[in-house]
Amino acid sequence: MLYFDFNATTPLADEVIESIKDALTVGWGNPSSKYDAGLQARMLIEEARNNVAACIGAASRDIIFTSGGSESNNWVIYSAVENYEASCISRSESGETYRKPHIVTTTVEHDSISAPLQALENKGKADITKVPINKTIGEIVPSDVVAAIQPNTCLVTIMMANNETGTIMPIREISSAVRRIENKLSSSIMIHTDAAQAIGKIPVNVNELGVDCLTLAGHKFYGPRIGALYVKNLNNKTFHPFILGGGQENGWRAGTENTPMIVGLGKAAALVRDYLNDYTVAMEDSRDYLEIKMAEIFGNKNITFNCKSPNKLPNTCNVSILGKGLEGYKVVKNAKGFCCSTGSACHSGNCEPSKILLSFHVGKDVARNAIRISTGRHTNRKQIDSLVMELRKVVDDLKTTVEKE
Amino acid sequence: MLYFDFNATTPLADEVIESIKDALTVGWGNPSSKYDAGLQARMLIEEARNNVAACIGAASRDIIFTSGGSESNNWVIYSAVENYEASCISRSESGETYRKPHIVTTTVEHDSISAPLQALENKGKADITKVPINKTIGEIVPSDVVAAIQPNTCLVTIMMANNETGTIMPIREISSAVRRIENKLSSSIMIHTDAAQAIGKIPVNVNELGVDCLTLAGHKFYGPRIGALYVKNLNNKTFHPFILGGGQENGWRAGTENTPMIVGLGKAAALVRDYLNDYTVAMEDSRDYLEIKMAEIFGNKNITFNCKSPNKLPNTCNVSILGKGLEGYKVVKNAKGFCCSTGSACHSGNCEPSKILLSFHVGKDVARNAIRISTGRHTNRKQIDSLVMELRKVVDDLKTTVEKE
Ligand SMILES: Cc1ncc(COP(=O)(O)O)c(C=O)c1O
Ligand SMILES: Cc1ncc(COP(=O)(O)O)c(C=O)c1O
Repeated sequence: MLYFDFNATTPLADEVIESIKDALTVGWGNPSSKYDAGLQARMLIEEARNNVAACIGAASRDIIFTSGGSESNNWVIYSAVENYEASCISRSESGETYRKPHIVTTTVEHDSISAPLQALENKGKADITKVPINKTIGEIVPSDVVAAIQPNTCLVTIMMANNETGTIMPIREISSAVRRIENKLSSSIMIHTDAAQAIGKIPVNVNELGVDCLTLAGHKFYGPRIGALYVKNLNNKTFHPFILGGGQENGWRAGTENTPMIVGLGKAAALVRDYLNDYTVAMEDSRDYLEIKMAEIFGNKNITFNCKSPNKLPNTCNVSILGKGLEGYKVVKNAKGFCCSTGSACHSGNCEPSKILLSFHVGKDVARNAIRISTGRHTNRKQIDSLVMELRKVVDDLKTTVEKE
Repeated sequence: MLYFDFNATTPLADEVIESIKDALTVGWGNPSSKYDAGLQARMLIEEARNNVAACIGAASRDIIFTSGGSESNNWVIYSAVENYEASCISRSESGETYRKPHIVTTTVEHDSISAPLQALENKGKADITKVPINKTIGEIVPSDVVAAIQPNTCLVTIMMANNETGTIMPIREISSAVRRIENKLSSSIMIHTDAAQAIGKIPVNVNELGVDCLTLAGHKFYGPRIGALYVKNLNNKTFHPFILGGGQENGWRAGTENTPMIVGLGKAAALVRDYLNDYTVAMEDSRDYLEIKMAEIFGNKNITFNCKSPNKLPNTCNVSILGKGLEGYKVVKNAKGFCCSTGSACHSGNCEPSKILLSFHVGKDVARNAIRISTGRHTNRKQIDSLVMELRKVVDDLKTTVEKE
C-alpha cells in the first residue's frame, strides 16, 4: 500500500509513538492529584504545552488542549456568540436594541466550521456571511472580508490553508484589514483561523498572523488524534469555556486530561518546531516531481491542476485527468494499492463533485474528475513513479470501458 | 509509592496498553477513507463499540465515543435543552406560552454535571432543582425526585454512584417513578445517569436501569482518557449533536476518530464484561479488610465511616479520623509514599471540607477530617497493612504537634 493522502491523516511519527507509549505507563496519574503520580502527569502536560506554544510562536498560557480540530472549531464559534450575547446584555441595559450576532466566514471552510455556523443560522441565532473565494486563484480577498463586516460582527473565521486544494489564505492581510475596520466601528471582532492543514507544512506564527484564536489538529502533522486551541490573552473576560466541570486546563476545559495523547501532541509539535524546513522541502520535492510526471505522462492538455494560487501548501496536488468516464472516485477506486482521495477526506467518500472546487473557477466536469494527492515527509520519487504509472494504467482501462459502452 | 486513589483515576490494564500500542501503528488511517488503511481503522472502532455496548447491555448503534465523562455529561445537558426548545417552538405555534426548561438533579453530582447546570441557571436559560440526599444513608429518594418534577422538566440527571462516598443511587427505582409521572404529565423527560464511578465496580445494565442516557469514563475502569455516551434509540429526533462537522460517529459527533484510544476503551470494556465479578470481589476484599484494620488500629470510637448506605461501591472507603488537627488534607499530605485523596480528586486539592459530605449527615469537623481511600483490582492486604500503619504514625505525629501548640 502506498499512501498519498497525508491531508486526510498522517501516521504518527516514531518519536510520537514512543512518547505516547511511555506516557501510558508513567503518566497515568490524575494531573489534579497532589501526590507524585499526579505531579508527574502535570509536568508532562506542561512540557507538551510549551512545545505546542513554541511551534506557533505563542505563550504557553494561551494554549488549551482539546479533543481535536473539530472541537476547537466548534468552541471558537460557541465562545464568540456567548461573548457577543454577554456584551449585548450590558448594552441592552443602556437601551440599545438587540441584533443577532453576525459571523464572517468563507465558502471553502471545513465542515467543522461550516456545519456549526449553518446550525446557528438555521436556529435563527446568528447571521452568517460566506465570503466567496477569488474565482481565478482561489484565495480569499481581504477587501471582500472587510466589505462583509457589520456592526454586529463578532467573529471572522477563515482557514489558513484549504484541505482540498492546498491554497493558503492571506490571513495576515485579512487580520490587519479587519483590525482597521474594527477600530472604526469600535466593536470587538474575534479573528480565528483554522490552521489544521497548515501546521507542519508551512510556518505558522500567531503574532505574525495577527489572529485571536487558532485551531490545531494533531493527526495532520504526525501527531495523535487530539488538538489544541490557541487563544490570545486567554485570561481576559472575552473567551468562554465550552465543556464545564472540574476546572482542568485552568478552568478552560473540563475533563481529566488525556495525558498520553497530550504528550504525543507536544512531541509532534516539537518535531515541527525543529524540523519544519526539512519537512517542507521533502514534501515539496515529491509534490513538484509528481506534477512534472503527471504532465509528462498524461500530456499537459489532458490534465488540470486545480490550485491556481502561487500560495499553496508544499504537499498538495489537486489534479483532474480530463475526459469522459474519468471521475475522480473511479480513478481512485481502481488505483489498487494506492491511497488518494477525492473531495474532502473527512466526509465518507462522496461521489458528488467537491463543493469547494465548484466554488471557484473549476467547471463541473473538471471538478468531478478531481483527485487529491497529498505527499508526506517520507514520500519519495520512486513512490511517485509507481503512482503515476498506475494512474496511467487505470485511466487507459477506464477509457477502454467508455469506448466499449 | 502505594496507590489508593482508584476513584480519581486508574492505571491502564496491561491488555489495554497493548491494544493502544498496536492501534497506534496499525490503526492510524482515517476511518472515513475508503481504502484499506481507513477500513481497518473503522473495523477496529466498530469492534470497540460492540465491546462497550456489551459491557452495559446496550445496542452498539446507541454508543457514541466522546473525549471523556465531562464531555458526555455536558452533551446530555445541552441536548436536553435543545430538544426542549425545539419542541417548544412547535408548541408555541399552537399558542402556548414559553416556559424555561427545568432540570432535576442532586446536590452530590460531579462538577461536570453541576457546573454546566449552574451556568444555564446563571444565564437564565433553565431552572434547576437539586434534590438533596437522604441525610441518614446518603441516597437519593425516588419520591423526592418525583416531587421535583414539573410540566417543563426535560431532564433528570442523577449519578449512579458517588465518587467521594461510593454511595450507589437507586437509579432503577428513580427511572420507574419518573416514567410513571411522565405518563401522567404526557411530557417527555430524558433520564440520564453518570455511571463514571460505577462501571468496572458494579454491574451496569442500561435496560435494567431504565435510563435514556448513560455516561462512561474510560480512566475509571483501567481504560484510556476518553469516554462514551449511551443514548437509547439514538436514531430518533430527540437527541442533538454537540460537536458538528464531518459527520463522524454516524453524524453524532464530529472529529476524526481517536482510534487508538477508542480501541483501548473497547478493550477495557471487554475486560469488565468478562471479569467484573473477579474485580468486584478483589476490591471488596481489600476495602473491607481496610475498614476492619482501621477500626482495630484506631478504635471504633475514634473513626467514622462516612458512607452509611448498604448500597455502596465495593472499593470506596470514606473515613474520618476524629480529633483536632487531623484534617484529611494534613493526614494525606503527611502519609508519604501513599496516594489517597480528600474531597473529590477531580478538583485540584481543595482544603475546604467536601461539599458532598456536608450535604448529608456529616458534621463540619468530621467532613474536614475525611479521607477517601479507594482500592483497585490488585490492591492486597499487605498494602492495606502498610497504609494503616502509616496512617497511625501520621496521626500520632499530628496529635503530638497539636499538643505542643
Ligand atoms: C462521577 C464522575 N463523573 C464524571 C467524571 C468526569 O470524568 P472526566 O474527568 O474523565 O471527564 C468523574 C471523574 O472525574 C466522576 O467521578
Ligand atoms: C481544515 C481542517 N479543519 C479541521 C479539521 C478537523 O479536524 P478533526 O477531524 O481532527 O477534528 C480538518 C480535518 O479533518 C481539516 O482539514
